[in-house]
Amino acid sequence: MSSSEEIAKSARKAGNVLKTLSNEQRSDILFKIHDGLKANKDIIEKANKIDLQVAEETGLSSSLVKRLDLFKGDKFESMLEGIKDVANLEDPVGVVKMARELDEGLTLYQLTAPVGVILVIFESRPEVIANITALSIKSGNAGILKGGKESVNTFREMAKIINAIIEENESITGVPVGSVQLVETRQDISDLLNQDDYIDLVVPRGSNALVKQIKSSTKIPVLGHADGICSVYIDDKADLEKAKRISLDAKTNYPAGCNAMETLLINPHCTNWCDVINNLILNGKVTVHLTKEVKDSYFDCLAKSNLLNDEIKSHVVDVDETKDFDGEFLSLDCAVKFVNSTEEAIRHINEHSSKHTDSIVTEDEAHANLFLKGIDSSGVYWNASTRFADGFRYGFGTEVGISTSKIHARGPVGLDGLVTYQYQIRGNGQVAGDYLGAGGKKAFIHKDIDIKTVNL
Amino acid sequence: MSSSEEIAKSARKAGNVLKTLSNEQRSDILFKIHDGLKANKDIIEKANKIDLQVAEETGLSSSLVKRLDLFKGDKFESMLEGIKDVANLEDPVGVVKMARELDEGLTLYQLTAPVGVILVIFESRPEVIANITALSIKSGNAGILKGGKESVNTFREMAKIINAIIEENESITGVPVGSVQLVETRQDISDLLNQDDYIDLVVPRGSNALVKQIKSSTKIPVLGHADGICSVYIDDKADLEKAKRISLDAKTNYPAGCNAMETLLINPHCTNWCDVINNLILNGKVTVHLTKEVKDSYFDCLAKSNLLNDEIKSHVVDVDETKDFDGEFLSLDCAVKFVNSTEEAIRHINEHSSKHTDSIVTEDEAHANLFLKGIDSSGVYWNASTRFADGFRYGFGTEVGISTSKIHARGPVGLDGLVTYQYQIRGNGQVAGDYLGAGGKKAFIHKDIDIKTVNL
Repeated sequence: MSSSEEIAKSARKAGNVLKTLSNEQRSDILFKIHDGLKANKDIIEKANKIDLQVAEETGLSSSLVKRLDLFKGDKFESMLEGIKDVANLEDPVGVVKMARELDEGLTLYQLTAPVGVILVIFESRPEVIANITALSIKSGNAGILKGGKESVNTFREMAKIINAIIEENESITGVPVGSVQLVETRQDISDLLNQDDYIDLVVPRGSNALVKQIKSSTKIPVLGHADGICSVYIDDKADLEKAKRISLDAKTNYPAGCNAMETLLINPHCTNWCDVINNLILNGKVTVHLTKEVKDSYFDCLAKSNLLNDEIKSHVVDVDETKDFDGEFLSLDCAVKFVNSTEEAIRHINEHSSKHTDSIVTEDEAHANLFLKGIDSSGVYWNASTRFADGFRYGFGTEVGISTSKIHARGPVGLDGLVTYQYQIRGNGQVAGDYLGAGGKKAFIHKDIDIKTVNL
Repeated sequence: MSSSEEIAKSARKAGNVLKTLSNEQRSDILFKIHDGLKANKDIIEKANKIDLQVAEETGLSSSLVKRLDLFKGDKFESMLEGIKDVANLEDPVGVVKMARELDEGLTLYQLTAPVGVILVIFESRPEVIANITALSIKSGNAGILKGGKESVNTFREMAKIINAIIEENESITGVPVGSVQLVETRQDISDLLNQDDYIDLVVPRGSNALVKQIKSSTKIPVLGHADGICSVYIDDKADLEKAKRISLDAKTNYPAGCNAMETLLINPHCTNWCDVINNLILNGKVTVHLTKEVKDSYFDCLAKSNLLNDEIKSHVVDVDETKDFDGEFLSLDCAVKFVNSTEEAIRHINEHSSKHTDSIVTEDEAHANLFLKGIDSSGVYWNASTRFADGFRYGFGTEVGISTSKIHARGPVGLDGLVTYQYQIRGNGQVAGDYLGAGGKKAFIHKDIDIKTVNL
């Protein structure tokens, strides 16, 4: 048996136990992990210092070094707080989603259940290991964790502490050894991606390149997004002030975010649409990549209003239609194109977007409803910035990631992305052969039960 | 462009239109398809006769030939009825699952939405093409359909009629050409399984071998089950009558069903457990595959009660531990093993079952709850036969298939297996930069709205 298979098998074994534990037991170990990490602050800080030293010696950029530093400001303390926050969340497991009386004394329930074993691959921020440990145990899943190599010493020390606490308390909390396993090398990961018999879900948290590579090399379902190509469409019936505010925020509030606008679609029948581009350039320092059509019209419009100056000119470039509409800039750049109707906007977005989040700016309800129904993305917005696509802004309490998959979990994903469901039947000896369709005479009742009254 | 890519692309295009149509439009075309198939009964019957003739000439078994015959009894009429039944179901699209006020005038909704493009691969029963056409259009999905080659003439004729009706009525119903496409060859399928850019979900309805082969040859998510290894566990606290009834029904009601019992786990502390096996043999003509331990005890017990006769002996064989617990018999056979506790039963099932449906027979609530929480299958039952795992018995109106995947759709899947969800935000110009966490000062309200009051 390969070491990856052993890891995956022992995770499956631990997951099968975690599944049976109460919310109290799962939360209890999180409080104990909180205390243990707190008590071992010195050891962790020493390990973190080694990572920082190695990073500086190998010439990592100062911004990256800053991210590795777990003891800058109150980072360590807020990491600890985060564990308690997750422990205090409502139990995501065993939530009754449906209840139906099939017959007298024969009841069907649909309940949330842990996915089982999750493989989480994340970048180098050392605090993430605590966050993911908390999320996976809280949701009743066994976690196999792989962090970026730049924090390997910090991760190793923290994993050691976490596992010691789990082992010490196994007889009290029931949370088994094997619930959280750290793997360290890239080879481990590629072997683990073949363990589809034991691993149920892969959650990559990192660069798009990483996510793409993982998606193409495993049969295990992947919760993640490989791209965030978000569009804002300025309709002919747009309110100009809203159009300016939304496009500026969507592009400039955090250009490196996956929910930042990469494409601006403008209906040329929108009065004074030129102001939207002016606003992006003058107030956002955005470089606009214009199609020939947009550029000609825009420069005409600037000439008429005597605004064509060097500052504006320096922020206008020709769009590269072979790639600018199909990739992320992740910078203060934006591709701009004319579309002549809501339908045309929908067609462009469904063809080019990454099914992340797209927004229409319009005062016309029919146009808005067509857009909201027609766009095939996880987020479809009317008169709001794409930047709202975020687990905290959605009120999910915590965010596991953002998904551009179309099934299981879409968009910002909270703890519910780490659970699935099961059907329970509780009977008193009923057999199918007594019922119509399977040889018998009894009919099913199929009476829905108000889930608020269910207490299992 | 390959022909498969063309098919997949045009399906995607059709799906993007279907997504925007109302329930009335989607149902309307189904009624028209119903009428069209009814009016063209003679043409379909002629094509079906050719399939039957070919089948007889090539020496297909008479039971298979019977399945191909669309005009035996009222099969054709119930196929037509089925289309109307699906058309009359409640709209599965646009159902509000969650609504939350993020801020004044800024509201988040979670709504069901079509998956997009589904590829359905099914066996030779000719009526299935009508059923799948109805299900996919009703749920707003474009469907690419491939049926078993034995019914190729019937399928081709029906697809021609369905597509002619869609084309004729496109200007009225809005349902576009390309919504339903029939493909005919195996080569088409293997090419289509590579079109993961355009196809969102594969639904194989057929033999386990087919499902397994498809699962291992595509990156597209597959809704289906490759195996149905279901277990019944007779606990030490089982009621003997329930144990006998449930095990007999689970094994013999329909042995070829995926929800039939393949493994019987017995706690030897259950008083008179021998009767459970006697009942299977004498009343069910079941051949029991016993472990050495079970066989020894069973024969002891028979000897004591003077029941050891030739009939019973002829139904007892030695279990093959290398495979009998890990595969389906799909016949009147059953593997039997002792387990000494609920925990041991859970461990055996989680290791060997196919995560389909498993049942515990017990009067002990604690044992039952442990089993219901611990088993990692889509169906977990207490004192009920595994044969209840079925969309019609669950009251789903219609069944798309049974899934042993752990995410998206588990267990019996109704129309909800063909939908996913989207998040909508409706605002009036809000931007993220005004809010805390993104540079601003405003706080989110995050007030849940009762979905019953939502009317979009």
